[in-house]
Amino acid sequence: MFKGGYKGKILFVDLSKKEAKVHELSEEEAYKYIGGSGLGALYLNRLSGPETDPLGSDNPLIFMTGPLTGTKVPLSGRHQVITRSPLTGILGEADAGGYWGAMLKRAGFDGVIVAGASEKPVYLWVHDGSVEIRDASHIWGLDTYEADEAIRKETDSKMVAACIGPAGEKRVLIAGIMHDGRDARAAARCGVGAVMGSKSLKAIAVYGEEPISVADEDGLNKSLKEMGPIIVKEGKGLGKYGTAGAIVTIEKVGDLPVKNWVEGKFEGVEKISGQKMVESILTGRFYCASCLVGCGRKVRVASGRYAPVDGAGPEYESLAMLGALNLVDNLEALAKATELCNRYGLDTISTGAVIGFAIEAFERGLLTEEDTNGVKLKWGDPDIVIRLVEEIGEAKGLGRLLGLGVKRISEKLGGLACELAIHVKGLEFPAHDPRAYNSLGLAYATSNRGACHLQGFTHVFERSLTMPDLGFDEVQDRFGIEGKGELVAKLQDLMCLYDSLKICKFTLFAGVKLRHILQWFNLVTGWGVDLVHFMKTGERIFNLKRMYNVRMGISRKDDTLPPRILTLKRGVGGAADNLPPLNYMLADYYRYRGWDEFGIPTVEKLEELGLTKEFQ
Amino acid sequence: MFKGGYKGKILFVDLSKKEAKVHELSEEEAYKYIGGSGLGALYLNRLSGPETDPLGSDNPLIFMTGPLTGTKVPLSGRHQVITRSPLTGILGEADAGGYWGAMLKRAGFDGVIVAGASEKPVYLWVHDGSVEIRDASHIWGLDTYEADEAIRKETDSKMVAACIGPAGEKRVLIAGIMHDGRDARAAARCGVGAVMGSKSLKAIAVYGEEPISVADEDGLNKSLKEMGPIIVKEGKGLGKYGTAGAIVTIEKVGDLPVKNWVEGKFEGVEKISGQKMVESILTGRFYCASCLVGCGRKVRVASGRYAPVDGAGPEYESLAMLGALNLVDNLEALAKATELCNRYGLDTISTGAVIGFAIEAFERGLLTEEDTNGVKLKWGDPDIVIRLVEEIGEAKGLGRLLGLGVKRISEKLGGLACELAIHVKGLEFPAHDPRAYNSLGLAYATSNRGACHLQGFTHVFERSLTMPDLGFDEVQDRFGIEGKGELVAKLQDLMCLYDSLKICKFTLFAGVKLRHILQWFNLVTGWGVDLVHFMKTGERIFNLKRMYNVRMGISRKDDTLPPRILTLKRGVGGAADNLPPLNYMLADYYRYRGWDEFGIPTVEKLEELGLTKEFQ
Repeated sequence: MFKGGYKGKILFVDLSKKEAKVHELSEEEAYKYIGGSGLGALYLNRLSGPETDPLGSDNPLIFMTGPLTGTKVPLSGRHQVITRSPLTGILGEADAGGYWGAMLKRAGFDGVIVAGASEKPVYLWVHDGSVEIRDASHIWGLDTYEADEAIRKETDSKMVAACIGPAGEKRVLIAGIMHDGRDARAAARCGVGAVMGSKSLKAIAVYGEEPISVADEDGLNKSLKEMGPIIVKEGKGLGKYGTAGAIVTIEKVGDLPVKNWVEGKFEGVEKISGQKMVESILTGRFYCASCLVGCGRKVRVASGRYAPVDGAGPEYESLAMLGALNLVDNLEALAKATELCNRYGLDTISTGAVIGFAIEAFERGLLTEEDTNGVKLKWGDPDIVIRLVEEIGEAKGLGRLLGLGVKRISEKLGGLACELAIHVKGLEFPAHDPRAYNSLGLAYATSNRGACHLQGFTHVFERSLTMPDLGFDEVQDRFGIEGKGELVAKLQDLMCLYDSLKICKFTLFAGVKLRHILQWFNLVTGWGVDLVHFMKTGERIFNLKRMYNVRMGISRKDDTLPPRILTLKRGVGGAADNLPPLNYMLADYYRYRGWDEFGIPTVEKLEELGLTKEFQ
Repeated sequence: MFKGGYKGKILFVDLSKKEAKVHELSEEEAYKYIGGSGLGALYLNRLSGPETDPLGSDNPLIFMTGPLTGTKVPLSGRHQVITRSPLTGILGEADAGGYWGAMLKRAGFDGVIVAGASEKPVYLWVHDGSVEIRDASHIWGLDTYEADEAIRKETDSKMVAACIGPAGEKRVLIAGIMHDGRDARAAARCGVGAVMGSKSLKAIAVYGEEPISVADEDGLNKSLKEMGPIIVKEGKGLGKYGTAGAIVTIEKVGDLPVKNWVEGKFEGVEKISGQKMVESILTGRFYCASCLVGCGRKVRVASGRYAPVDGAGPEYESLAMLGALNLVDNLEALAKATELCNRYGLDTISTGAVIGFAIEAFERGLLTEEDTNGVKLKWGDPDIVIRLVEEIGEAKGLGRLLGLGVKRISEKLGGLACELAIHVKGLEFPAHDPRAYNSLGLAYATSNRGACHLQGFTHVFERSLTMPDLGFDEVQDRFGIEGKGELVAKLQDLMCLYDSLKICKFTLFAGVKLRHILQWFNLVTGWGVDLVHFMKTGERIFNLKRMYNVRMGISRKDDTLPPRILTLKRGVGGAADNLPPLNYMLADYYRYRGWDEFGIPTVEKLEELGLTKEFQ
C-alpha cells in the first residue's frame, strides 16, 4: 500500500453510460510513472490510438494530480490534463495551478478519467469520495466566471471547479479548461477545452476534507522549515511583480515575440511590464495551494474604455502573445483581453498567436475585408485584439477560422500563409523566441505536445540558472551549438518529473534545487529513490509520450521549426542575428537519447526503460 | 536583324489543331533571355500558369537551342527542354547534348514549341525550314533505339530524333526524352518525357543543312585556334575515362550516395569506375556536336547474364544512382540497367532513386511482398534493379507506384515513408551529397527545378576549381558556412547563362574560363556585352524562373532539404560528420539575392531586372 502522497484511487466516469467507477491506482505503475503527466500519458496510451477521434466520444479526458499535489510541499498546487489533442492530433496536455488538484485529492481521488460523451450538458460534482453526474443545461453558455458562481450555489461554497466557457462548448480548437473561477487558473494548451466540450461536460466541481498522508511528516516539516524562508526570500521579486516582472529583460535579450515574430524590439514593453501593473491596476496576488511565492495577479479596471475588469490579471505569456506579438502596449486593454479569454475559456497563447497571424495575413492580402466583415485588421490596435478574442470565443465571424489554430488556418488559406504560421506540430509557439536561446529551438522541435518552453525549460539555464546535479555547473552559452542535445534531453526528462509530481517549475526561481525536489518526493512517498533512478523515471515518461506520438505518425520530419524562425534574422535587439542551428542540435539530441535516425526510440531503449509491453 | 548565332525563327506546332506556324524570334527578347533555358522559361511563363495541367493539352513543351548551339564553339552541342513538370508541378527543364540542337538550327529553327495534344500518335518531321505532322501509330510502343531506326528509314539517314520510349508514352512521371538513337543523349529530368507522351508525340526528327552564321567568323576562328589545343589537353582525362572517371575520388570525399543516402562509403566503387569501364566493356567514345572532349561512353556486353548491351554506356550519375545508391557494383548489370532506361526513356537518376527508396521501404516493412508480387527487395542485387527498371518502364507491377517519383510514393505510403524520400520540391536528388559540400545543400534547396547540382554547379568550386572573374580566387571551404549565399547565387546565375547559350558545363574542366565564354558569345552574336551585363542577364533568367515557381506557390517553405540530409551524420567516409547549415546559408542567400523574407523577388528586384511586365 502507498505510504504517502497518493490516495490510491482514480475516478473513472463514462458519460455515455452515465456511470462512474473507482479504479485502484496500481502502486507499480505509480512507482514507474509517478502521477500527473506520467500516469496520464500511460492511461492515454492505453485508452486511445490513431483511430481515436479527438473530438469523438472515445477520446479520454484525463485529470491527474501527482504525489506532491495538495501536500505541504511548496508550490505543489498543480494538476495535469491529458487527452489526444484536437488541435495537434498528438498527445495533448496542459496543466494548471490553483486549488483544484489539491481539492480533488481531499475529495479522495488522485485523478479523474472522463470517457464517453453525454447527450445533454452535464457537470460532475465530486465530493467526499463520490461523484454525481448533474444536469448542466441551465449553465451551458455561461462564461467560466459565471458558471463557477452558479455551480458554487448548487454545491458547496468551498468547492473548486474545472470549467469550460463558451469556446470549449463550441469546440474551438484553442479552448482551454479554467479553474478557480475569477482567479482563472488555466490548463489551456492543446485544445483540452474543446475535448471537454465535445463530451458536453461543462465542469468538474470538487470538494473534500480528507487529509493527504505523507510518509515522513517530521522529515518533511524539518526540510520545509529550513527551505520556507529561502523560498520566500528568493521568490520575492517574482511574487511582487509576477511573471511579467521579467518582460523588460526578456525584450532586451531578444526573447520577446514582436509583430508575429518578425521584429526584434518592442518599444512599448515597459507599458505592459509587471512593474507597471503594480503601479496601476494590480489589486492583489494569487497563491496556488501550498505556494510561498504568489506570482498570480489580481487586477481591477474600474473605469475607462476597457472597464470593467475584475479578477485574474494577465501573466507574462498573455501580455506577450496578446500584446507584444500584436504591437499592443495598452495594459488595461490587455487585462480586458485576458479576462475575455478567461471567461470564454481560451488559451491566451494560441489566441494571441492566431490574432497575430490574422493581422499579418490581412496586411499581406491573404485575408480580405470579406473575411473580416469589413474590419481592417492592423497592428497595435487593442480594439481589434479584443474584437477578435470575442469572435474566437463565440466562434463567429472570422473567429470561426481563427479558432482552428495557425496550422489549420494556414493550410486552408494555402501558399504564402504557411510562411506566417508559427507553430510546431500544430501547437502555437509560446512567448519565447528560439532565436534568443538555441536550446529553445531544439526544445520546441522535440517537445511532446508541440512548441513548448515549459516541457524543456532549458532557456533559463542559458540565461541565469545552473544545475550542478545534472552537470550544468555554469550558465550555458545561449548562442552555442555544442551540448544542446544533452541539455535539452536532460531537462525534458526533469520537467517530465515536475509535471508528474506535480510541482511548479518556478521553484527553480525560488532557491529550490533538484536535490530538494527529490528529497520531498521521498519524504512524501517513502520510496527512497536516488537521483539516477529519479532521472531514469523522467526519461521513461518522456519516451512514453514520444512513443504515443510515434503511434500517431510523428517522426523526425515533424521535429522542426517554422521557416521564419529558422531563417529570418531580425536585425535588431538582443539576439539580432542569431538563428538556431536546429539540424546539428537534432542530430546530437537523437544520439544522446539513444533514438534511431528517425527520432524513434529503439527497441533496446524501450527495453531499458521498461516500456516494451506498453507498445506491443 | 540578328548578326549571328540565331536563326530568328521558332517553330510553333499545335497538335490539337494539327497546324504549325513559324514565329519570328524577337531580338529584344533574345538579347534579354539569350536562348535555351532563358527564352524557354520566358515562353513557358507566358503560355502556362497555375491552372495548367502538366499532363493536359494546354501545357507547352518547349525545345530551345541557344545562340552557340551548332556553331564551332567547343562543347556547344546542347539544347534545353522546358515545360511545367508533371513530377514537381513547377518549372520543369532538362537538357541534352548530342546533335539534335545543332541539327534543329540547320533545319532553320532556334526552337520548337509544341502545344495541344494529338488524338493519335504522331511524330514531327522537321526539315529544311518546314514541318510535317506524321502518323506514328506504327512506332508507338517501340523503345527509343527501335523508334529512332524506324523514323530514320522513313525520313533521312542523317536525321536526328528526340524521342520518347514506352515510359513517356505511359506518362511515367520520371520519363525523359532521348536523342541520337543508340547514343542515347538524354533530356531526362522533371518528367519531360511524360509531357511528350501526354501529347501523343513520339518523336521530333530534324534534319537540315542551313549554315549557322556567326557575327565575327575570323575572330571566333582565331580564338578557337588558340583554345582548341588547351581544351583537348585539359579535357583529356575526362575524355578518356568519362564522367565516371571521378567516381573513386567522389566516394573518397563522401560525395557518393550509398544505400539511399545512409552510408558514407562504398566498397565496390572501383568496380564501377570509368577506369574499370575502359578496361572492360568500353568500345568507343561519343562526342556531342562541336565537342573536343568526348566524355560520352559507348559500350558492349556481348555475352553473359546481362548481354546484350550495345550503345551508350552509363555515365557517373547512372552508375551512382542505379549502382552505389542500391549497393550494386556489377558494371555489366549497370550497363544493362542504363540501356534499359535509355530504351524505355527513363531518367536514370530518378529511376535509381525510386529503386533505392523501394528497397529501403521494403526492408523497413513499409512495402511488402504484396506490393512487390512476392519479390523480396534487397540491397546489392543487380537483378532486382533491372527488374524494377523494367516494371517502371512498362508501368506495371510495383513500377506503377515507383514511376510516380519518391515524393508522391512517400505521400501515398505516408508516415515514416516520408523520411526515406530524398528530394527537393519533388525532384529526386542527383548523385552528389550536400553533406560533402555545403554549397550543394543550398543549391539543391534553391534550384528552380528542384534538387539539382547542375543549376548551381557550386561543389566543383569547393573541390578544385576557382573563378577569379566572379571573385572566387581560391577553392572554397566545402565545410564552411560563410559566403555560401553569394557563391550559390552567382554560380546559379552563371549556370543560367550556360543553360541558355547553350554550352556544356564541362568546359569548366577543360580550361575554358568565363572570359572565353563571354568572348565567344560576343563573337557569335556581335552584341559586345560586358561581364556585368552578362551576369545581370543570368540573374534575370534565374529570377524569371523563380517567379514562375512563385506563381505555382513556391516560397521559402519549399527551399529545404530532406530530414535525412539535414540530420543524419553518416559517421564514416570523407564527410563523416558534416551536415549542411541550411538555415544560415538560406538567410544569407535571400539577402544576397535581394529577395524578401519568403524567398520572393521584390518588386524592386523585378524592376531592376526588367522583369516587371512579365509578372503583372
